[in-house]
Amino acid sequence: MATKIILPEAELPTHWYNIVPDLPSPPPPVLHPGTHEPVGPDDLAPLFPMDLILQEVSTDSYIEIPEEIREVYRTWRPSPLYRAHGLEKLIGGPARIYYKYEGVSPVGSHKPNTAVAQAYYNAKAGVKKLSTETGAGQWGSALAFACSLFGIECEVYQVRASYDQKPYRKALIETFGATIHPSPSPNTNYGRAVLESDPDTPGSLGIAISEAVEVAATNEDVKYSLGSVLSHVLMHQTVIGEEALKQLAMVDEKPDVVIGCAGGGSNFAGLAFPFVREKLAGTMDPVIRAVEPAAAPSLTRGSYQFDFGDTGQMTPLVKMHTLGHPFVPEPIHAGGLRYHGMAPLVSHLQELGLIESNSLHQTETFAKAVDFAQAEGIIPGPEPTHAVAEAMNEAERAKEAGEEKVVLFNLSGHGHFDMAAYQAYFDGHLVDYEHPQHQIDEAMQKVPVVAGE
Amino acid sequence: MATKIILPEAELPTHWYNIVPDLPSPPPPVLHPGTHEPVGPDDLAPLFPMDLILQEVSTDSYIEIPEEIREVYRTWRPSPLYRAHGLEKLIGGPARIYYKYEGVSPVGSHKPNTAVAQAYYNAKAGVKKLSTETGAGQWGSALAFACSLFGIECEVYQVRASYDQKPYRKALIETFGATIHPSPSPNTNYGRAVLESDPDTPGSLGIAISEAVEVAATNEDVKYSLGSVLSHVLMHQTVIGEEALKQLAMVDEKPDVVIGCAGGGSNFAGLAFPFVREKLAGTMDPVIRAVEPAAAPSLTRGSYQFDFGDTGQMTPLVKMHTLGHPFVPEPIHAGGLRYHGMAPLVSHLQELGLIESNSLHQTETFAKAVDFAQAEGIIPGPEPTHAVAEAMNEAERAKEAGEEKVVLFNLSGHGHFDMAAYQAYFDGHLVDYEHPQHQIDEAMQKVPVVAGE
Repeated sequence: MATKIILPEAELPTHWYNIVPDLPSPPPPVLHPGTHEPVGPDDLAPLFPMDLILQEVSTDSYIEIPEEIREVYRTWRPSPLYRAHGLEKLIGGPARIYYKYEGVSPVGSHKPNTAVAQAYYNAKAGVKKLSTETGAGQWGSALAFACSLFGIECEVYQVRASYDQKPYRKALIETFGATIHPSPSPNTNYGRAVLESDPDTPGSLGIAISEAVEVAATNEDVKYSLGSVLSHVLMHQTVIGEEALKQLAMVDEKPDVVIGCAGGGSNFAGLAFPFVREKLAGTMDPVIRAVEPAAAPSLTRGSYQFDFGDTGQMTPLVKMHTLGHPFVPEPIHAGGLRYHGMAPLVSHLQELGLIESNSLHQTETFAKAVDFAQAEGIIPGPEPTHAVAEAMNEAERAKEAGEEKVVLFNLSGHGHFDMAAYQAYFDGHLVDYEHPQHQIDEAMQKVPVVAGE
Repeated sequence: MATKIILPEAELPTHWYNIVPDLPSPPPPVLHPGTHEPVGPDDLAPLFPMDLILQEVSTDSYIEIPEEIREVYRTWRPSPLYRAHGLEKLIGGPARIYYKYEGVSPVGSHKPNTAVAQAYYNAKAGVKKLSTETGAGQWGSALAFACSLFGIECEVYQVRASYDQKPYRKALIETFGATIHPSPSPNTNYGRAVLESDPDTPGSLGIAISEAVEVAATNEDVKYSLGSVLSHVLMHQTVIGEEALKQLAMVDEKPDVVIGCAGGGSNFAGLAFPFVREKLAGTMDPVIRAVEPAAAPSLTRGSYQFDFGDTGQMTPLVKMHTLGHPFVPEPIHAGGLRYHGMAPLVSHLQELGLIESNSLHQTETFAKAVDFAQAEGIIPGPEPTHAVAEAMNEAERAKEAGEEKVVLFNLSGHGHFDMAAYQAYFDGHLVDYEHPQHQIDEAMQKVPVVAGE
């Protein structure tokens, strides 16, 4: 059983951390999909309110968190940091394991950290409705929750594979007053086109993004909201790492390894970026590792290229590790990680050698998550089972090497809405997918060539 | 949105509160089912370890909580008290509404408060396995969680209606390493008898208790564990009310109304008993109200008589408000409240006029729970929807009367595993059940006559 390390409410972060000014080189610009020229704030104005656009391109190291947002954060933040005594006992080695637990939020994941911020800035700008996509439903329910607080309508396009696997998420999203559609849907031009060519598609985040963007782009009173990938979204998540730094200092620890699962990259970045800052400043020197599913291996098998964020080619081009925007990952249970690309900032940091990555299969991550649950009492969501498993592997390696390592990972959410995945694991129905290289190569052939790259 | 009132960890209660010595008259004794004579500790020894039996009959006002239990409590306790600003804004009246939120525990309800204690004392006594029943699954998952922490096996009999409605609870219970059977089951003599006479029965808590008791009574290495009703179980829950008292004092408030939902009575008693103590001491004078489902109305329509705690007539006789031990409540979604009786201590307090009760229908409680979720961001479990609805009704009445009331209720758990109930509500499939009087009368005819009563 764990020990909880509580950060006093007065220590709730007052600012989000923007890693960009601290980097040895800036990330590449975002390009217009037609001209391949860098986009300006006005190009993004049909989709986002100006406050968020300015955060996306900000060169300030810190951006103050408005009191209205901190008021909502305080209903569950600061989130607990746990010392995993139960897990350490199970493994039996010298590693000391800590995890930051974001499952205490109203929807059970880290996603409200940015959903609340995005709903706030949209409401402040007079926006009446937000459209968005969701994979497993963590993001859709977070935005539905945040919109209900700020009195905005919310329309969610959920990847069909997850929509079918996780009916409880639909009910949760509807309880918060939002509407939800399986994606691809007949509601949009792009959705209709996909359904026509492949009526039985499991869908993908890339397709769902296209639908949600289309709704916002073609309706003047609707803006679009994204739950990961973009720099301002990652920045909103840095409250996780800022709190964790303070909590580790309370017990006089510095991590040797910092681990987060990564799909779009937001929970990983939220924990990791403040530690990257400390690494750059020389106050500590942890290995910082993103763990992705073997079935959606953008960081470990993708190319670092300019590509579309969505399958329908409606977004700007961003330089990231990508499997190609037409790539549709197999329907693993970690639906929140089923994305063809990776956040440009996370990709850039890997190129700079500031972070590293690896990938795991879901039968391994669920097996380890069950051990974790029995040792620590918390059921991890399918996505953070990857972080749990990697942390356990790290502790096992430390045991074999007889090294006294401090391992920190982000338990980004609980699995209460994902118990069908655990049932599938118990019933022996979980399948490990390894996409053959030709699938990735085929998808990459559709990636546009940007001059000078 | 709510404001969280945080109790410092150092203020975690050190003692459970036993209300018995403070009452103007003691509760009636527990009777042997054969002799109708009061049972002694040795009569209960086949089912429970002696530490718990001594707590059951204790006349001490306070019993110290062992450090091993407090260590586990500290992983989620003290639980937050929320000021329901969002709900108050929605209702718009002068009432100030507070709720104690027990959904922060690892299984999302108040049940671990006693599960951890029971697993601890059984482990201390060398018990290797516990059998139990569960309705909605809150209790079964709490005991499975606690047993996994203390290295005890756990076997759960879940009421079939809930087993079918809530498959995620089964997966949760299995994730904690326990085994689970729908009840009635072919595993026990009693289960086989019930299945023979009614193969399609939805089951009931009374039947599931009989099966779990039979397993413990007929296996020397198995003890039995109950999630409500018994006095020591209610006592373990008083940490809820003790914390709430301190948290209200932090904001200088005294409640005018204290509300809890009631099935067996444990979450209600956990919040209410410390407030009854204050009422008896004259430090405050709240109305204290138990709210039950109209489909399982023991306090509001039952008789105050000696009856069996289970349908199979295996338990001792306890004096309580009962609908008759053969009574099978209709399969409402609040499976945790589908019980024919009420905790003897809660029943005794109603007879003494220290508490009152009423009942509500589930379509009303879910409608109000959805409003609550949109205002406060938390999805109530089906059971506490009754407390939520009653608190909202109380605030509405205060608004009509122009009275500045302070309302406190117990939000005993979240509804993450019960989203099928919300889906049924949205789909218009929820049915309100009102049992005709002849059904209760028929069940009451089977209740034994105790001389002198």
